[in-house]
Amino acid sequence: MTSFEAVADQLDHLAVEVPSWAYGNSGTRFKVFGSPGTPRTVEEKIADAAAVHRFTGLAPTVALHIPWDLVDDFGKLKAYADDQGVALGTINSNTFQDDDYKLGSLTHADPKIRQKAVDHNLACIDVMDQTGSRDLKIWLADGTNYPGQGDIRARQDWLAEGLRTIYDRLGGDQRMVLEYKFFEPAFYHTDVPDWGTSYAHVSALGPKAFVCLDTGHHAPGTNIEFIVAQLLRLGRLGSFDFNSRFYADDDLIVGAADPFQLFRILVEVVRGGGYGEGSQTALMLDQCHNIEKKIPGQIRSVLNVQEMLTRALLLDTAALDAARTDGDVLLANEIYMDAFYTDVRRDLAGWREQRGLPADPMRAFLASGYQDDIEAARVGGTQAGWN
Amino acid sequence: MTSFEAVADQLDHLAVEVPSWAYGNSGTRFKVFGSPGTPRTVEEKIADAAAVHRFTGLAPTVALHIPWDLVDDFGKLKAYADDQGVALGTINSNTFQDDDYKLGSLTHADPKIRQKAVDHNLACIDVMDQTGSRDLKIWLADGTNYPGQGDIRARQDWLAEGLRTIYDRLGGDQRMVLEYKFFEPAFYHTDVPDWGTSYAHVSALGPKAFVCLDTGHHAPGTNIEFIVAQLLRLGRLGSFDFNSRFYADDDLIVGAADPFQLFRILVEVVRGGGYGEGSQTALMLDQCHNIEKKIPGQIRSVLNVQEMLTRALLLDTAALDAARTDGDVLLANEIYMDAFYTDVRRDLAGWREQRGLPADPMRAFLASGYQDDIEAARVGGTQAGWN
Amino acid sequence: MTSFEAVADQLDHLAVEVPSWAYGNSGTRFKVFGSPGTPRTVEEKIADAAAVHRFTGLAPTVALHIPWDLVDDFGKLKAYADDQGVALGTINSNTFQDDDYKLGSLTHADPKIRQKAVDHNLACIDVMDQTGSRDLKIWLADGTNYPGQGDIRARQDWLAEGLRTIYDRLGGDQRMVLEYKFFEPAFYHTDVPDWGTSYAHVSALGPKAFVCLDTGHHAPGTNIEFIVAQLLRLGRLGSFDFNSRFYADDDLIVGAADPFQLFRILVEVVRGGGYGEGSQTALMLDQCHNIEKKIPGQIRSVLNVQEMLTRALLLDTAALDAARTDGDVLLANEIYMDAFYTDVRRDLAGWREQRGLPADPMRAFLASGYQDDIEAARVGGTQAGWN
Amino acid sequence: MTSFEAVADQLDHLAVEVPSWAYGNSGTRFKVFGSPGTPRTVEEKIADAAAVHRFTGLAPTVALHIPWDLVDDFGKLKAYADDQGVALGTINSNTFQDDDYKLGSLTHADPKIRQKAVDHNLACIDVMDQTGSRDLKIWLADGTNYPGQGDIRARQDWLAEGLRTIYDRLGGDQRMVLEYKFFEPAFYHTDVPDWGTSYAHVSALGPKAFVCLDTGHHAPGTNIEFIVAQLLRLGRLGSFDFNSRFYADDDLIVGAADPFQLFRILVEVVRGGGYGEGSQTALMLDQCHNIEKKIPGQIRSVLNVQEMLTRALLLDTAALDAARTDGDVLLANEIYMDAFYTDVRRDLAGWREQRGLPADPMRAFLASGYQDDIEAARVGGTQAGWN
Repeated sequence: MTSFEAVADQLDHLAVEVPSWAYGNSGTRFKVFGSPGTPRTVEEKIADAAAVHRFTGLAPTVALHIPWDLVDDFGKLKAYADDQGVALGTINSNTFQDDDYKLGSLTHADPKIRQKAVDHNLACIDVMDQTGSRDLKIWLADGTNYPGQGDIRARQDWLAEGLRTIYDRLGGDQRMVLEYKFFEPAFYHTDVPDWGTSYAHVSALGPKAFVCLDTGHHAPGTNIEFIVAQLLRLGRLGSFDFNSRFYADDDLIVGAADPFQLFRILVEVVRGGGYGEGSQTALMLDQCHNIEKKIPGQIRSVLNVQEMLTRALLLDTAALDAARTDGDVLLANEIYMDAFYTDVRRDLAGWREQRGLPADPMRAFLASGYQDDIEAARVGGTQAGWN
Repeated sequence: MTSFEAVADQLDHLAVEVPSWAYGNSGTRFKVFGSPGTPRTVEEKIADAAAVHRFTGLAPTVALHIPWDLVDDFGKLKAYADDQGVALGTINSNTFQDDDYKLGSLTHADPKIRQKAVDHNLACIDVMDQTGSRDLKIWLADGTNYPGQGDIRARQDWLAEGLRTIYDRLGGDQRMVLEYKFFEPAFYHTDVPDWGTSYAHVSALGPKAFVCLDTGHHAPGTNIEFIVAQLLRLGRLGSFDFNSRFYADDDLIVGAADPFQLFRILVEVVRGGGYGEGSQTALMLDQCHNIEKKIPGQIRSVLNVQEMLTRALLLDTAALDAARTDGDVLLANEIYMDAFYTDVRRDLAGWREQRGLPADPMRAFLASGYQDDIEAARVGGTQAGWN
Repeated sequence: MTSFEAVADQLDHLAVEVPSWAYGNSGTRFKVFGSPGTPRTVEEKIADAAAVHRFTGLAPTVALHIPWDLVDDFGKLKAYADDQGVALGTINSNTFQDDDYKLGSLTHADPKIRQKAVDHNLACIDVMDQTGSRDLKIWLADGTNYPGQGDIRARQDWLAEGLRTIYDRLGGDQRMVLEYKFFEPAFYHTDVPDWGTSYAHVSALGPKAFVCLDTGHHAPGTNIEFIVAQLLRLGRLGSFDFNSRFYADDDLIVGAADPFQLFRILVEVVRGGGYGEGSQTALMLDQCHNIEKKIPGQIRSVLNVQEMLTRALLLDTAALDAARTDGDVLLANEIYMDAFYTDVRRDLAGWREQRGLPADPMRAFLASGYQDDIEAARVGGTQAGWN
Repeated sequence: MTSFEAVADQLDHLAVEVPSWAYGNSGTRFKVFGSPGTPRTVEEKIADAAAVHRFTGLAPTVALHIPWDLVDDFGKLKAYADDQGVALGTINSNTFQDDDYKLGSLTHADPKIRQKAVDHNLACIDVMDQTGSRDLKIWLADGTNYPGQGDIRARQDWLAEGLRTIYDRLGGDQRMVLEYKFFEPAFYHTDVPDWGTSYAHVSALGPKAFVCLDTGHHAPGTNIEFIVAQLLRLGRLGSFDFNSRFYADDDLIVGAADPFQLFRILVEVVRGGGYGEGSQTALMLDQCHNIEKKIPGQIRSVLNVQEMLTRALLLDTAALDAARTDGDVLLANEIYMDAFYTDVRRDLAGWREQRGLPADPMRAFLASGYQDDIEAARVGGTQAGWN
């Protein structure tokens, strides 16, 4: 197997974008539990994200959600983030919480609502111009709950039309990433339910449009690493939304539900050129911390990505190719599992120390007093959530 | 096939309990959309439920949720319901919205929280004493989100202990029904995830404990009519929570997603003695109307149950038995499908008219002006929802 | 709702291709049960297929599987079929039963095996030249059982290469349809697992390549009618393999498991121009009759398609569009369900009689003595199966 | 975390029963590929099983399948196994390959067929008397393919009746284990589809009846470790059939698809008293080796169980309990994952050497020449398979 030393430098490329909303409260339709220390402002969210980066060196950018993170002066917010040691990243548009969007946004039967949704996305590109963000991420809650409720076919055409207008507004280095989701909040049909639909749209739009793959947005049993390999092959894997799931879109900490799946995904990322210099693929988290502490929850998440990426890099691809060429099923699998089963935690602790980072970011954060400080300081006001 | 006339009288036994919360707002974790005319009080919910019964003759009782429907004087509420022409039904306890229940209720690691959850259920039995309700329904949100988070085994023992205390408080004619759910809001493990677990508990408790089967609470592909048949055989099918689903616990209108499945379920209900005089099985709705109008949504729901029950009663069981004895797979299936494919809507319209009900309850409700009246009257206040 | 009379003529366009292998024995890995009267030769399969057409008027063509249906003289076989009153249809290639294909065919790591698989497909086009068939259907069993076993990414490139060679050999009016399948016989990854993969390949190949949608080849919960609508929109829905499933690729009689799903699919077929003159979409069956009688099993299947297509045609699309424009969720659903719930069986019996067909094809077949005749005649020899 | 040394002795209790049929050919309905060296006789299967035990020290017993492994003199077979260094284990009855069982066995509508199936199971107990086997394992293929085909409810009663007769014939130390399966080969309903059904039957039968849990026989998403914990709590977990799956009952090498799941299962086994002295729970494999070599496939399988059991034993349960009591979700999960992520392979190699076993059983087997010998010797005859 490849040695840790041989891959240590490649680990320097790892950057995982964290979502501002992971630091606010989240929950299920049954209950959103609050917790002490939760941010009340965008700035407090960014401060928490910056803490994750300070302790791990892995999270240099923060994604924003509009209008949740709307501020009057994005230039000032950018400067604030710079001061904290992080940059502003992907801009996520939101067309699912205004009353007008009850029956759809870009796919609504009423052209006025469709225009409103287009306009919101254009406004998000205005924000990108100010924040210097590269990516506009579009996730649509659009869909229907009852058979017959909507015209599935016409909605695709409306969607294509709206995406075209938004795409044409993108600046030279800006990109659009179109996320797909199997179901929820719509329960009969979803207008962008699978990678095929997202791919059909982005390939029709042009070279600046890409697919966003959220690891929790697939049917039970779906082989996600296959989709990763396919989208990289087609040149259209724009970004990941990492999280994990046992059932639906559970939005658990990435790697928590099936660490071996995360390994398999990252093997295909590396195999297909989705990691390192020149890669077009952004790695992002999109998670909920409904019951666990949020900042250490994010730290655990980026560490999980780092640990699994390390294992993926350790894979002895030369030996693997030879076993595959020989048709030796058991040997190929053994070589593959050897990388997965290797415990890289001690090596990574050393790697961190060499780079001036705490060997154990979780313990270091807990010892730092940061959590106590924010719990003491953030009293009063309204805790941030999905609104 | 059996004629409609031959089964018309059996239809008189049909009573579908409606949930008070179906008339309030509901939604997903992404958004709860409000709508004009939504009740602000328990009384307004009961008034809406009574409207459903007036137009259909099918919904004589209303289930309450505590504390959502907590009032100072349940005797007065009972009288109000009587005046409206309906009765108060099942009492649903709620141990998932208090901050103490973040990590569990009857299965919490802390015995004080477990006691609190037990006490809440005992208080619900106090309510039953006042309302004259027969059934206490226990649905637990208990579970964990991360592997290792909780002691799965110990939690079962705690659960058994808590249920025992609650069970022992039941009055002579009162019953406990224990609902199971595959997942949500817990995403790794659920403490009562399947019928087997519910059955193991209720059979240990005694003859007044039963299983509640919610049609949306199963793994993909589960044959629900088999569970119906099995629980009826074991004498433990206490009640249904009817709704329908394509993916998770979508809580759509019963029969909307898979009408044939509803037919198959009702065939086994009839086959196993779960319908009609002497049956121990209560038929209830548990649904959300996130985007559609709520009162007509409930009317459609009870009509769907009535239409499918009619088809199930039409099944020519003698011919079916003969085909099964002959091992004639195609003929048995054809006889079965013949009942399902029969359009009973015109016959049911006539049946309704004979009983002084509107032939088309949907049209009659829409023409009645009830919706306009409540939209005009219910201005101000806080619309009811899941709180 | 639209009247039956208004759609009766449109029903004349219905033609459902039947598979030769449906008349042979089939089963599971546990057991293939034989049955009296099963064909021993291709000619006997065609004779049985012709019987299905005689009694229903719905099945004018028969699909062949090579090498299962390999004969020395396809011209003679064509003439035989003509005599029986049917035509030879789609040619299915088979690259999953030769020992060489144990680890793949068009995606095998060994270029010699890949070439062999290409050559087999070219030979199938030779057969098409003789039979006059339009479509070459490629379904691949290719995939792997263990993580790491194969190079998922490289296999896509090999697949693209092989398909290109085969595509370039197609004659002027010939087409290739590429089937996808979620899993089985491969259990970790499948090389063409979803419509997106098939679409990416066929759109790269050119205008004569299309997707084949087998209704049993999807992940649990997949909204198939959405895929139908999308592929029709993209101009790439080449054909259906109809069957039905509760769990995996159960290959049950189409419409048996979820008749409402079949309705929804056919509504989108009609909506998207997939039915009638000018349509590029072929309707085929691909089923197993493991325990039921095969010929009546096929008759039931084509009747199920006819009955559901009739309901789909009855849909009042003008009223539906109005309800959708109004955002009336319940009314749109009701209009949709009205078509589904309409019992069209009596009208179809009349329609058949007007066209000189038996009113009840199932009863007519059973009364015809055909089954008795073949059971008496087909004694000795080896019953046909999947080999 | 617990040290390896502290758990080393507990590993001595591990014994994994291997199935005789794993050494024969297996496949899918599409194709069974043969392979050189495959056994032709029961004795050759036992010899291969003994090789697995020689190289691993983990597989001291072999399960038999009747009639696949039927011999005239089981006393002689027992002596042969003894000579090879293994013992005969569980007897598996087979009521799914005789033509009479096409529509069911213990649940067949025809009492004569039910009696035949009972008699076969009684004959299997006769075999147990000769082999000294403790367990009769009953897995039923019984079920139906089409709604309406069978009387689901009556079949349960027939099943209960048949099981009672079989149970009453068990000798003093003999046990019955009843396996459940979600689906396949039946595709609409299965007569023992879930643990609840198996539990309901075995608890009605008496103290010698237990549930057999096959890890591949559940609906997608099912939390299997919960079922393990529950059945151990109820005192009814008789045995495991280990294998792994991505989709259906894929029967892959245990631990291959989701090693973390295997860990979680074994944690609950240990937690609930299912491992070690006094345990009632037998650990068995039930797998297919369709494309990989069979003997090393079995070696890999028992090693996977050993490796994951070791990790499970390493779990620091005291620290875990403390974290759970504190409600520290992230810490509890971290302690749990710490055991899973620990690479135990080097320690296990040392453990083996201390016990006179090869440090690397896979390499040792490959170097032994055993495979070459059997490929050379086993020429001619009919290779064993599922018949």
